[in-house]
Amino acid sequence: MSALSDPFDGLWPSVEPELPEQALTAIAGRAQESDRAGVPARESLDLLRSLDWPGRPVPEKFHGGGAGLVRCCAMQRALGAADPALAVALNMHLFSVGLMVEHWRRRTDTSWLLMEAIATQNRLLASAFAEPNLGGSTTRSLLRAKEVDGGWRVSGTKRPCSLAAEADLVCLQLQAEARPGAAEDVLVALLPTTAPGMRVVRDWDAMGMRGSGSDTLVLEDCLIPDELVFHRAPAGSEDDDVFAAGTIWFALTATACYLGLAQAALRHAGDLLGRLRIAHLDSPRAGLPSYQAAVGDHVAALLTLEAACADTARRMESGAAPERLVDTALAVKQRALRVVPDAVGALAEACGGAAYSRSGPLERLWRDAQAIRFHPPTPVATRQYLARRALGLPAGLDLDESAPGLAGRAPGAADGRR
Amino acid sequence: MSALSDPFDGLWPSVEPELPEQALTAIAGRAQESDRAGVPARESLDLLRSLDWPGRPVPEKFHGGGAGLVRCCAMQRALGAADPALAVALNMHLFSVGLMVEHWRRRTDTSWLLMEAIATQNRLLASAFAEPNLGGSTTRSLLRAKEVDGGWRVSGTKRPCSLAAEADLVCLQLQAEARPGAAEDVLVALLPTTAPGMRVVRDWDAMGMRGSGSDTLVLEDCLIPDELVFHRAPAGSEDDDVFAAGTIWFALTATACYLGLAQAALRHAGDLLGRLRIAHLDSPRAGLPSYQAAVGDHVAALLTLEAACADTARRMESGAAPERLVDTALAVKQRALRVVPDAVGALAEACGGAAYSRSGPLERLWRDAQAIRFHPPTPVATRQYLARRALGLPAGLDLDESAPGLAGRAPGAADGRR
Amino acid sequence: MSALSDPFDGLWPSVEPELPEQALTAIAGRAQESDRAGVPARESLDLLRSLDWPGRPVPEKFHGGGAGLVRCCAMQRALGAADPALAVALNMHLFSVGLMVEHWRRRTDTSWLLMEAIATQNRLLASAFAEPNLGGSTTRSLLRAKEVDGGWRVSGTKRPCSLAAEADLVCLQLQAEARPGAAEDVLVALLPTTAPGMRVVRDWDAMGMRGSGSDTLVLEDCLIPDELVFHRAPAGSEDDDVFAAGTIWFALTATACYLGLAQAALRHAGDLLGRLRIAHLDSPRAGLPSYQAAVGDHVAALLTLEAACADTARRMESGAAPERLVDTALAVKQRALRVVPDAVGALAEACGGAAYSRSGPLERLWRDAQAIRFHPPTPVATRQYLARRALGLPAGLDLDESAPGLAGRAPGAADGRR
Amino acid sequence: MSALSDPFDGLWPSVEPELPEQALTAIAGRAQESDRAGVPARESLDLLRSLDWPGRPVPEKFHGGGAGLVRCCAMQRALGAADPALAVALNMHLFSVGLMVEHWRRRTDTSWLLMEAIATQNRLLASAFAEPNLGGSTTRSLLRAKEVDGGWRVSGTKRPCSLAAEADLVCLQLQAEARPGAAEDVLVALLPTTAPGMRVVRDWDAMGMRGSGSDTLVLEDCLIPDELVFHRAPAGSEDDDVFAAGTIWFALTATACYLGLAQAALRHAGDLLGRLRIAHLDSPRAGLPSYQAAVGDHVAALLTLEAACADTARRMESGAAPERLVDTALAVKQRALRVVPDAVGALAEACGGAAYSRSGPLERLWRDAQAIRFHPPTPVATRQYLARRALGLPAGLDLDESAPGLAGRAPGAADGRR
Repeated sequence: MSALSDPFDGLWPSVEPELPEQALTAIAGRAQESDRAGVPARESLDLLRSLDWPGRPVPEKFHGGGAGLVRCCAMQRALGAADPALAVALNMHLFSVGLMVEHWRRRTDTSWLLMEAIATQNRLLASAFAEPNLGGSTTRSLLRAKEVDGGWRVSGTKRPCSLAAEADLVCLQLQAEARPGAAEDVLVALLPTTAPGMRVVRDWDAMGMRGSGSDTLVLEDCLIPDELVFHRAPAGSEDDDVFAAGTIWFALTATACYLGLAQAALRHAGDLLGRLRIAHLDSPRAGLPSYQAAVGDHVAALLTLEAACADTARRMESGAAPERLVDTALAVKQRALRVVPDAVGALAEACGGAAYSRSGPLERLWRDAQAIRFHPPTPVATRQYLARRALGLPAGLDLDESAPGLAGRAPGAADGRR
Repeated sequence: MSALSDPFDGLWPSVEPELPEQALTAIAGRAQESDRAGVPARESLDLLRSLDWPGRPVPEKFHGGGAGLVRCCAMQRALGAADPALAVALNMHLFSVGLMVEHWRRRTDTSWLLMEAIATQNRLLASAFAEPNLGGSTTRSLLRAKEVDGGWRVSGTKRPCSLAAEADLVCLQLQAEARPGAAEDVLVALLPTTAPGMRVVRDWDAMGMRGSGSDTLVLEDCLIPDELVFHRAPAGSEDDDVFAAGTIWFALTATACYLGLAQAALRHAGDLLGRLRIAHLDSPRAGLPSYQAAVGDHVAALLTLEAACADTARRMESGAAPERLVDTALAVKQRALRVVPDAVGALAEACGGAAYSRSGPLERLWRDAQAIRFHPPTPVATRQYLARRALGLPAGLDLDESAPGLAGRAPGAADGRR
Repeated sequence: MSALSDPFDGLWPSVEPELPEQALTAIAGRAQESDRAGVPARESLDLLRSLDWPGRPVPEKFHGGGAGLVRCCAMQRALGAADPALAVALNMHLFSVGLMVEHWRRRTDTSWLLMEAIATQNRLLASAFAEPNLGGSTTRSLLRAKEVDGGWRVSGTKRPCSLAAEADLVCLQLQAEARPGAAEDVLVALLPTTAPGMRVVRDWDAMGMRGSGSDTLVLEDCLIPDELVFHRAPAGSEDDDVFAAGTIWFALTATACYLGLAQAALRHAGDLLGRLRIAHLDSPRAGLPSYQAAVGDHVAALLTLEAACADTARRMESGAAPERLVDTALAVKQRALRVVPDAVGALAEACGGAAYSRSGPLERLWRDAQAIRFHPPTPVATRQYLARRALGLPAGLDLDESAPGLAGRAPGAADGRR
Repeated sequence: MSALSDPFDGLWPSVEPELPEQALTAIAGRAQESDRAGVPARESLDLLRSLDWPGRPVPEKFHGGGAGLVRCCAMQRALGAADPALAVALNMHLFSVGLMVEHWRRRTDTSWLLMEAIATQNRLLASAFAEPNLGGSTTRSLLRAKEVDGGWRVSGTKRPCSLAAEADLVCLQLQAEARPGAAEDVLVALLPTTAPGMRVVRDWDAMGMRGSGSDTLVLEDCLIPDELVFHRAPAGSEDDDVFAAGTIWFALTATACYLGLAQAALRHAGDLLGRLRIAHLDSPRAGLPSYQAAVGDHVAALLTLEAACADTARRMESGAAPERLVDTALAVKQRALRVVPDAVGALAEACGGAAYSRSGPLERLWRDAQAIRFHPPTPVATRQYLARRALGLPAGLDLDESAPGLAGRAPGAADGRR
């Protein structure tokens, strides 16, 4: 058992065909500068376009790469190891295209036209789902769209929206103004980023994932033509195999980005620990039992998480019903939330001050790793969902709770702050 | 997503053909009495024999059930949910037979004779690997076997040895007395439990897994005929695909027992939480956000662990090289060590005092769950192994370390206690 | 820094005067038998009476020992190290008497008569606060007392009630049947255990703390004379310095019992780890870096918890306002809930199978340690309370929450189970 | 219990006299700019000098403020809440002066001259103890000083050295070149930062604590006059009450900085959680049970840590022997290492993406909080130390271990990397 292979090898298929080592090295080489500048590395995006990356998940019959969920996860993991901010930004594209494929498989319609355009023209997609005060809900919007002749008119703010300024198209959710007596519907539409009334505010300036370009999209009296609304469902509704499939795609590809990040952290920390000597013990830190004891359980947690992510992706790709897999996919993401930041933090701690310095890549990976806590669905909502599922209760991804004792107080008291 | 299916469904194949619901119910019904009495439920063992359980992993060509690792894990999980102590005790059988199959596949020899005997005669095997002061090593023995005419003569103690008093055969490790200048070899042999010089001391009396019959096997001047020694390798050696395969079988089937235990705990806790009302909130505990918040992340950890265990078993069964899987298999077991006892403890805590009472099954499951901390390889050894592997250092499952400052003190000081 | 003193020395005052080493040794000697039998060690109770233990917290002017909270914690810690089940059982006495002292200090009245009786006659008190479905509330009761001539008539069940069968007096809470238009009041009364209509059902049979005699008290049409009702307050009310003082006494003395338990576990584990050798490393486990790495952070957590417990007790004894200390006292107990069971589990894990065997004391301490999760206020209520306090929101120790989505379903759906 | 006081009030004495609210507000107002610029806020340092901060720990008879350890911790906590980077940088001054006081109390000599100069002239001290490859040892140096006429000559690098460029004096450790047959001694000396041969390289550029000015001090053939060497002891020696006192001062004042940081994080997170509404629940996050459940246990951990820190400081100030307190002081710092970063991370997670943005202070506090993992003694060394102490083994703060199996390999193999 002592051969010096990498314990993480073999968990995923090789992505050499799609993302050659040389391309990944080039992308990795730009990650630090992108972090400093706080904008995506445009050359890396161009490189990926030149490698036909945007169409990878599109079925081959529509001139795409035909990559299923397993291969898409493997690609995101490789990209996450090279430049996590770029991988996370692109994850919205990948997930949205994956969702189109799932949609097309289940409700065969004209959505293939769009996929074909993406594949043949290497179009990049941004997803504008997040909004302030949504609480991470993925089936609602606070933007109210007013029905007008030929479409919908809407104003409001979407934030954060990765690659808002770099993408060709944007996928967004709106809530249709309810007609009297009717429930509200959520609309999902796809617009070119050049649509009138839509503009990007370059205001992304975060602790980490600084190169993800997660800026703000402002809609001012923006018209959305009916023919660009491709999905409509009651607000808050999650009872849908396409919704389940989308949740799985997002949870697993997002997790894969951070698994790649963890690989990069492990590699850099391994280098440091192998070089940093403790003089009075005449040994590098890596060779000492106490440092090994500080690292081992994190390796166990990462390997377990990788295997679980891969397993769920494989089952999805083999045709398991999404409704049966969505719980495990969310569980994998929820665990990743603890496992990845904890592992990166422990590795940094073992390396000592060198890991804290901006002269090496570990501190950037450390900052980037924290972003996993913020992707929807939120950790508190996922926790409640999984508990209810395991306890045999009805469950949804929107938080369902109140505190009567606080809410019952005089107006303003619900906020209750000193 | 609100359909009230079980989130754990579908992770494993159904074992209804091998272990019908009715049989599992009967076995579960004897678990509490077996715990109280501190001995295995003999009727449950008989029932399993009547279901041809002992030969399940034996290839069909040798009249066995042909169950691979995935199916064996699924069976252990079902058995662990019914009676964890019985499942853990039988795990040594399953693992040993699985190892024979792996051995036979790689070194085709006469070992099939033995497998055939197990399958056709429903023989149960006990494994006598553990010894005091071995420190959990699985490639060493402190028993020194002296070469004599036609075999080996040996005395010593093996403890704990599950089903020592119930099994038909026992598989055990010994260390051959070294000839001058030669390294020591470890011998693995298989003896009938009726062999002269071998006796069982019924001394198993533990906090949990009380029905596992993990008694002490005493060898007094016991003769082991050469023809029953079926494996010989240098002590401490782990460089072997069969060793790797055995480690994987053990790590995964053992984990599966505890995953079953966790399922049982989840079911019982779910029942309690659904029944225990909090009067002033007019709700059962299960319906309250704070209780859900206390449970959700444990569900995430369990689902992730299950998927990782299943994935590793599936890859093994699909023919991946064991040397590539052993790290992940050990990682899965190492995580199970934290995840399962933590989950059971959190569920009990949420249920309140009712979970602590011996009138319900939760307290037994809680005690049983702790046993996962004690299976070889030990948690400290696995931690060191995985860290070294991830740091690119040579690694083995025997702890490798010393504390020069303590060891260098006057005789006795290494023990150093006040 | 290498002198082999005990790092836990000096945190607390010596209790040699109150509990001589010899007495503690005698008590410790009976702990295992008491655990096996599942009843309190009567000789230990007699010994404590002979040492005037019951009156220790009573002021000297009333012929008591005059022990303040610091000294009471120190005594409970010493008793917890000797026999945790006995310490926990007696904690209800200590806490109740401590509360009387706090009451008397603040509302000088005739309560000193009772304290004097306890001190001069060495009376033991049981506390009957817990009830099924109370959800751990300490300011409510589900027993409805009907006002009758000269007192109150009540029926119902109190469970668990430590030392119900061994104590001389029982302190209990009831809720007065509300008069129309009035809020419900909680009454606190003190009855002799020989009161007509009150009987003990010997049904305590738990995983741990088996020697605490936490049986069930049944009241059947029991009359409580007005003069034995010594406190009356609106149900659910916590706005009271005496309530705060009582919460502090309970939280800290209960924590101290488990700190003593942890000391015992540390001592036994230290002995085992110093004796258990790992043959191939020629060292006891205690001397190896990996085992030290597995233990060190638990020592840090225990030392920190001890210092925090002692600090809060000292500030209380120095006259700080209870309302200012109650948050910290609850925080200490909430931390103890994690720190003590985790430490005992980690020590057991490091010792290996020997810790799991019933031949040594570690497995009993392990089972006993879990009971800390069940004392009121419950962990979920304390968690919510502390969060609200830190977030500047109104807070109480009764859980305040609902899940509208679950509650709004058809009748029965709030329970919602499959 | 519902009054809206702050649960953290009253743990420490008020520092209004030394650090008026107005001054702290001014200092806090410069923290963000200092973080952006990556240098200490000079106006804040000037302000502190104007408040006679440098002489606070100096006894009043030498014209200082006479602040003991409790008050110094309270000041550091207040400063840490205002500008953690400044507090951590100044902690080296505070600790060094505190150590001088301890030294003077125990070995009355002329060290009072220096303290008097610090107090009357408001001199700031930097401490140059850290060096690459020291492994966090505090009783060794890799700089070899050669004895010359009238003093010692030395070259080498000290890094990181907070306030190297801002301080007036620097306290540093060197190792005297051993004479044949003699053990090596460590020298501690105090030099003006203007000493010939000493220069500062402004290279501090870290993830957090960016305003601490922890630059590099380079010594090139620097002469240290004998009269500035004020302490000499064998290398690696820790058997000294002054060493113990210094360790306690450092551990507790450093912890206090991070406790202040946690207070700031709690305040900012509380504001955010009270403002961030979840639209579909019509409530701010702070008012929801799941968010409270995510926060409560962190509050418990912080309150416990604060109380433990205060308790140890109070016992030290009351004259307890340092040798008896050093274990608890180290335990407090070791716990702070987990508690503070975990709490800040959990608060940020609860706030969602707003906490990740550089537009608010939480992300800075998050980055700053991680620095606690890097102060000496290192977490692995402290872990080993505390474990050995609790197991009754000889213990020191220098790691003591080796891995024979790795070290015994061919040259180079100890490093062992692929």
